[in-house]
Amino acid sequence: MNETPTPPTDLEAFKQTFRRHAAGVAAITSVGPDGNPVGFTATSLASLAAVPPLVTFNMARVASAWPAMTVGNYVAIHTLGPRSRHQAEKLAADNAVRFVGDHWTEGPHGVPVLKDVTAWMIGRVLEVHPVHNNAVVIVQIEEGALGDEDDALLYHERSYMKPDRL
Amino acid sequence: MNETPTPPTDLEAFKQTFRRHAAGVAAITSVGPDGNPVGFTATSLASLAAVPPLVTFNMARVASAWPAMTVGNYVAIHTLGPRSRHQAEKLAADNAVRFVGDHWTEGPHGVPVLKDVTAWMIGRVLEVHPVHNNAVVIVQIEEGALGDEDDALLYHERSYMKPDRL
Repeated sequence: MNETPTPPTDLEAFKQTFRRHAAGVAAITSVGPDGNPVGFTATSLASLAAVPPLVTFNMARVASAWPAMTVGNYVAIHTLGPRSRHQAEKLAADNAVRFVGDHWTEGPHGVPVLKDVTAWMIGRVLEVHPVHNNAVVIVQIEEGALGDEDDALLYHERSYMKPDRL
Repeated sequence: MNETPTPPTDLEAFKQTFRRHAAGVAAITSVGPDGNPVGFTATSLASLAAVPPLVTFNMARVASAWPAMTVGNYVAIHTLGPRSRHQAEKLAADNAVRFVGDHWTEGPHGVPVLKDVTAWMIGRVLEVHPVHNNAVVIVQIEEGALGDEDDALLYHERSYMKPDRL
């Protein structure tokens, strides 16, 4: 009677499709209502519009950064490269240690800006759309800067990877 | 007096960040209110939740596929590989010729399913969030299937690419 239940078709279809998909890795940081830095790695960063510059990302509403995702609050969005892979790993670790160390500095509006990233931008949360236990967050970009050049960091087949020519 | 106006800081920050970002390539198809197939390539496909299986993508509201993005309508979401790069190019061509040819078949609920893709899934539009001239579309997945194995197709630095080990 301990048989594994058959997963529903919809979940299998979803999982097998995303196993075939590759995504760029971003790091998102902000400041929570208690004044402490929060952050997480995301493979869902996408452009929504160029004028005005809008981006989206998805997140779990149980994430430690969720309380910071209020309309008008500032967030930093970083793109990572193989050299900043340690930033992705740090932000995927236990909440309590994500900002212990000198791998970040306080940027515009007090938002944590990570070091060694390929680029970062600062924006304000424009809209938040909760769906079940997750949410889509829409951010309007205000400023940013480039870091040192590097490949783009990818996440695919449960590994960090980089793009290569066809 | 024909000087190029200085782009606003926010737009520059946005552009330079996305130049450093890589994304997987997906193809999204549906059937418009006039009964004709519609579709486009997207680099914004992202997972939102696994239970229930939800995905998001972003699109322009001037796209030919926009009228199909009504709550409850069916869409097909395909992941592409280097071998199905022609599907990405076809869906980025003029609207009138995107479905001229035998590169697709009619799938569940009459939705166009593209051939040679690495995986596809069918779902229904759950929510649509217009923002300025664009929109975030949330789809709940119902079924799908795997295609032949292939690398994941990436778009980065204005080129199609594939993932490689670090």
